[in-house]
Amino acid sequence: MRLNIKEILENSEKFINKPVIIEGWIKTSRSSKKFGFIELTDGSCFDTLQVVYEDTLGNFSEINKYPISSSLLIKGIVVESPGAKQDVEIHAESVDVLALSSSDYPLQKKRHSMEYLRTIAHLRPRANAFNATFRVRSLLAFAIHKFFQEKGFVYVNTPLITASDAEGAGEMFQVTTLDLENVPLNDEGKVDYNEDFFGKETNLTVSGQLEAEAFAMAFRNVYTFGPTFRAENSNTARHAAEFWMIEPEMAFTNLNELMENAEEMLKYIINYVLENAKSEMEFFNKFVDKNLLNRLDNIVNNDFGRVTYTEAVDILQKSGHEFKYPVEWGIDLQTEHERYLTEEVYKKPLFVTDYPKEIKAFYMRENEDKKTVAATDLLVPGIGEIIGGSQREERLDVLEEKMKNNNMDMETYKWYLDLRRYGSVEHSGYGLGFERVVMYITGMSNIRDVIPFPRTVGSAEF
Amino acid sequence: MRLNIKEILENSEKFINKPVIIEGWIKTSRSSKKFGFIELTDGSCFDTLQVVYEDTLGNFSEINKYPISSSLLIKGIVVESPGAKQDVEIHAESVDVLALSSSDYPLQKKRHSMEYLRTIAHLRPRANAFNATFRVRSLLAFAIHKFFQEKGFVYVNTPLITASDAEGAGEMFQVTTLDLENVPLNDEGKVDYNEDFFGKETNLTVSGQLEAEAFAMAFRNVYTFGPTFRAENSNTARHAAEFWMIEPEMAFTNLNELMENAEEMLKYIINYVLENAKSEMEFFNKFVDKNLLNRLDNIVNNDFGRVTYTEAVDILQKSGHEFKYPVEWGIDLQTEHERYLTEEVYKKPLFVTDYPKEIKAFYMRENEDKKTVAATDLLVPGIGEIIGGSQREERLDVLEEKMKNNNMDMETYKWYLDLRRYGSVEHSGYGLGFERVVMYITGMSNIRDVIPFPRTVGSAEF
Repeated sequence: MRLNIKEILENSEKFINKPVIIEGWIKTSRSSKKFGFIELTDGSCFDTLQVVYEDTLGNFSEINKYPISSSLLIKGIVVESPGAKQDVEIHAESVDVLALSSSDYPLQKKRHSMEYLRTIAHLRPRANAFNATFRVRSLLAFAIHKFFQEKGFVYVNTPLITASDAEGAGEMFQVTTLDLENVPLNDEGKVDYNEDFFGKETNLTVSGQLEAEAFAMAFRNVYTFGPTFRAENSNTARHAAEFWMIEPEMAFTNLNELMENAEEMLKYIINYVLENAKSEMEFFNKFVDKNLLNRLDNIVNNDFGRVTYTEAVDILQKSGHEFKYPVEWGIDLQTEHERYLTEEVYKKPLFVTDYPKEIKAFYMRENEDKKTVAATDLLVPGIGEIIGGSQREERLDVLEEKMKNNNMDMETYKWYLDLRRYGSVEHSGYGLGFERVVMYITGMSNIRDVIPFPRTVGSAEF
Repeated sequence: MRLNIKEILENSEKFINKPVIIEGWIKTSRSSKKFGFIELTDGSCFDTLQVVYEDTLGNFSEINKYPISSSLLIKGIVVESPGAKQDVEIHAESVDVLALSSSDYPLQKKRHSMEYLRTIAHLRPRANAFNATFRVRSLLAFAIHKFFQEKGFVYVNTPLITASDAEGAGEMFQVTTLDLENVPLNDEGKVDYNEDFFGKETNLTVSGQLEAEAFAMAFRNVYTFGPTFRAENSNTARHAAEFWMIEPEMAFTNLNELMENAEEMLKYIINYVLENAKSEMEFFNKFVDKNLLNRLDNIVNNDFGRVTYTEAVDILQKSGHEFKYPVEWGIDLQTEHERYLTEEVYKKPLFVTDYPKEIKAFYMRENEDKKTVAATDLLVPGIGEIIGGSQREERLDVLEEKMKNNNMDMETYKWYLDLRRYGSVEHSGYGLGFERVVMYITGMSNIRDVIPFPRTVGSAEF
């Protein structure tokens, strides 16, 4: 029977003493005079399967010389394994080469730097750390869909190419079909966008929130999950030009209910990965971050803290701790402040709420004090902010005044204001940077290592 | 108890005679002297819930004047409905306005043209056809993830911004941060891309296949599901500049096994929607395409047909049917040919296989006849091609020769050739245009009406 390694390992008892056919790649191999051992991977799971072959095979002396990553077809019997590592191994009756790997295969069995591995992004998923990372990334993506779908949320694909500059959330990439060597100009010397594909200037989106709000007015609860872009010249371990975001938007929902949803969601997806990626999570805990499983357990088993911005400022000021950026009411909290709060004071995930309106976006709902808005950032130990959200301003007059004060083009946002004209309701939403979550849950410390083919300033390989 | 309409309708018996609080929008309303009736929607499901109120309410005479789409808070009792339409209705004890809708609400209860509704894409999801479409779109997306995840496929997010032109599959959008009014030129008068964000010319991807192949060599079975772009000047009902694609890629898999997977996947997602969107599918069958459910039943309950291109050409030539484009061996089949085969000859979905190599892409595996490649298109009645796939050329020498003949830049594709150097294996993959599937399963006939905010030539609104 032709099986993959996952099928064999998950039902090992069922297959003991049964003949099987498996295909895969050599991860490692070694041999003595009478026996050879191949750790075989076939990509179906993180674990490898040991294949044992004897000198009775005609090609015995050649097998051990096959380069790492050569692809093989193996016929054999599933037998109980004398070793402690796995329940079963394969006793090979034949080991046939599908294709030999070239001997200059770059992933030989030694430590490689993360920087080097980024230059071979097409091969690095075969290395353990990346193999585990991209499996967990896939499981997390599915867990997010599953969580929202089970709650009846409608998945909405908001547009990537946009003619509006969203809320000015960041630098944007321009999208064009104009010939850059012969850009058409109009009489005023400006670019003539009539000749561009969309007949106007277009960019890559930085957020699908505003469009998601329109859909929440029809489907109550919706979520986006798609790529977003920032043309920021930030060469850090946490910034990528292209990344994925999840943006739930919920009608008839206030800030408290938003926080309940966000907390439940995070716990759900962490539990999903802990249950469905045991080998991968053990690998991370052993080789990447020895405190990882503790940290995740702490999240899953504790109620998240809640504190207002005003209280948080008070706590920081009275802490006696010396910060690089001094704390006073009105400042935007820096990473050092956020981490002090969540790591030193609360020692668990923490929602900070009700920020000064001056430092937050125009669409956030003004509180009754007229000084703060119903916004929240979720801070987590070890990383800082992981979620940003708010109750949205649903009052047409308040929103219009704020947009005028921000010198926004009311005509561009007329459709957004329409949502407040035709049956406006209390609603809230948040944004979750997918790569930040993957980093947080795997312990991987550079965003370039949790994206299959990362795009950062100066780099768009493959 | 505060509930949404979906919760009440799905467990109606449980709530009979219980007091509930619901929020929602007026879909329609009418009243007599003593009774008023509101069809309330809250977005939680496609169905509305009837709210009955009596003249004993203090605001009885006002309620009927509330404009359509006003948002309400209703307290009342769940009671058995005397009408046949639904099991239960709400007997209101109070009807309070959250926000009145403006009386110029564009979606009054009358027929609107699809063209007009596209101009109010922020409101059209409140109209039945779009409400049903975007619900089904969401369910289909989830069903696709569920299908592949249950089979152990790893979801991979391939890059959107790319420096390669993929396989020249179509016109591309350029992505840039250069100032178009002052494009920097080098000594040769060419654009100086050193000053662009990525230090080179970049575009929006037309396919994630090549990167997915790299991941299949590490994870055996993978799939992409993300946006792709074509800057084609095609103003048709089936072309959008931005659309979503699913691209599974499977190692140790030949063309036959690919077809089995594709057939199983399509049946799975159709069944998922038939089970989970009964009201929506009945709506489509009644108002959009009266043959829809028949057509889908036909797909789910039949084995798909298989025919080689060579046999198909023979069938078409002997059919006696007069085609606009004459049929001879070597031509690319036109939609008229495809539809004749699947609608008139086979009357069910049909895999056509083994196309002439000249009309197919460089990466498709050459058959032993040296004239054809192991490619397949899946044709379905009513729409034509819905899936295109192939076994990939895994032989390094054959692939290199083909790329040279195609004048491809070997340095750009060195990484792709590496996949054949380091343990090459038989592998296959296909592409599924998500919007085409949504159109096919809903009966909606214009791609602009199955995308929340469509991007087409000359149009990037919202």
